[in-house]
Amino acid sequence: MLESWNNGAAKAALVDFVEGSAQSVPVDERVAVFDNDGTLWCEKPAYIQLDYLVRRAADQVAADPSLATDPAYAAAQSGDLAWFGNAVEKHYNGDDSDLKTMAAALLKANAAATTDEFASRVAAFFADGTHPTLDRPYRACGYAPMIELLRYTEANGFTNYIVSGGGRDFMRPVTGELYGIPPERVVGSSVGVTYGDGDIAVTDKFEFMDDGPGKPVAIWSHIGRRPILAVGNSNGDLQMLEYATAGSRPSLGVLVRHDDPDREFDYIAGAEQALEQAAHRGWTVASIRDDWRTVFAGEAMPGAR
Amino acid sequence: MLESWNNGAAKAALVDFVEGSAQSVPVDERVAVFDNDGTLWCEKPAYIQLDYLVRRAADQVAADPSLATDPAYAAAQSGDLAWFGNAVEKHYNGDDSDLKTMAAALLKANAAATTDEFASRVAAFFADGTHPTLDRPYRACGYAPMIELLRYTEANGFTNYIVSGGGRDFMRPVTGELYGIPPERVVGSSVGVTYGDGDIAVTDKFEFMDDGPGKPVAIWSHIGRRPILAVGNSNGDLQMLEYATAGSRPSLGVLVRHDDPDREFDYIAGAEQALEQAAHRGWTVASIRDDWRTVFAGEAMPGAR
Repeated sequence: MLESWNNGAAKAALVDFVEGSAQSVPVDERVAVFDNDGTLWCEKPAYIQLDYLVRRAADQVAADPSLATDPAYAAAQSGDLAWFGNAVEKHYNGDDSDLKTMAAALLKANAAATTDEFASRVAAFFADGTHPTLDRPYRACGYAPMIELLRYTEANGFTNYIVSGGGRDFMRPVTGELYGIPPERVVGSSVGVTYGDGDIAVTDKFEFMDDGPGKPVAIWSHIGRRPILAVGNSNGDLQMLEYATAGSRPSLGVLVRHDDPDREFDYIAGAEQALEQAAHRGWTVASIRDDWRTVFAGEAMPGAR
Repeated sequence: MLESWNNGAAKAALVDFVEGSAQSVPVDERVAVFDNDGTLWCEKPAYIQLDYLVRRAADQVAADPSLATDPAYAAAQSGDLAWFGNAVEKHYNGDDSDLKTMAAALLKANAAATTDEFASRVAAFFADGTHPTLDRPYRACGYAPMIELLRYTEANGFTNYIVSGGGRDFMRPVTGELYGIPPERVVGSSVGVTYGDGDIAVTDKFEFMDDGPGKPVAIWSHIGRRPILAVGNSNGDLQMLEYATAGSRPSLGVLVRHDDPDREFDYIAGAEQALEQAAHRGWTVASIRDDWRTVFAGEAMPGAR
């Protein structure tokens, strides 16, 4: 079932675990958690959700030009993605001013009167959103080997969850089609929602960052079980892999290494500590260059349900 | 499958919905949500969780008598349950002082270094915890007609969730045995949890009240779908029933009415608005006295998985 994987140490470790030691764990407890950005789909040159939010802000400023007095909306209007990248860079250099402007604008763009309205917008984005350099629709930016892994773990009694730093409500409308993961098994960062008049509204108030130590917290809150398989690619996944592999039962941690400039991207930044810990803790590292025969799935995801 | 239900309007409404109009809703969207206290198990004369927390506080003060300088711990030590009831009563009369003392003590009693430790404590409580007036173990205080309803909806393609004002982590260790509901489908009020050193600790900081308008919010956060069946018994369930029945698909709201002083309890307090709305909105009211042939399930829950 793992036909997009080359035969090698990573594939062997997966098969040994999933068909081997994991089978001694009761089926109900075979919980697997997967990061999304950089693990299930491509996260470069920018998060897909950032592209979505900037486009949404551009739509808003087109409808209401007065919004362009806000520098973030002005950048969205002119398609100046570098402004957003610089805002993040300035943040890492100790200057939060643009990041705050950016966050406020994107949270405002993200808000919706109802969850149906929110989901419709996301669906419209994915209907024609295209990756800026890979010449493929965003909905075909999922990794074929990982989608095969989802089906393979399911076939062996696992229940899979997405546990992502990305927005929970941004992922939910598409994870069924892309990955065969239903909304109730999508855990992510969230903005506050409120109830009134029979419906749920999405506010512009940030609520929970599902990253780093927040991932085990979110896993416990949502699932109430310690996973036995955790798959990620960055430092933000470190604690999730640690939590999954610190229990008394058989377990496996897996990190995707982005080292294929020809077929995907080549970057270590943001994954340094995770990769270092992988060596210490015996986690499996899956090299895109060496371990993946095929990188991207076609538009119709094989076996997705 | 509903042998503990008398033939009547309530049972007929359930059957008409579950085997009738609900069958036009895709299986993945047949989500049912059940309140716990007063809906799935008995909530009188006091919440089972309150008994648990007071006993836990009593254990703590037995181990550390210096805690008895705290009035709430002192009340726990002497088994003075009336003190806790009075604290709540004073709160309703505008004086929060004892309630704050009580909350702080019970949150302290609730805290745990690991989730395993927490679950062990809860399991020990249910191993021999006995209802104060009904002469039956707490783990046999689930309502037979409701447990049958859980199995009946499942057999007809529904996925059931508990959505309770009770503590999420207090319910999870026992909902499998009592109701056949696994931890990942238990939504409830929560205290904060933190991650460190491979494990999750339960703090003494209150986090989320899953009651009233909080219930639809929690349903969206956890499930990401609007339920089509909601079952409750009190004003705290009003918005959950409203949310479930406000969509465009077939749906049903159900309220349990506690009107059987001989076999259970007879009380309307706390359910006034919910029962009033039931009449306006066509929700089904299930009378314990008239609609339930049997009230309590035996110790071994029939058909639980």
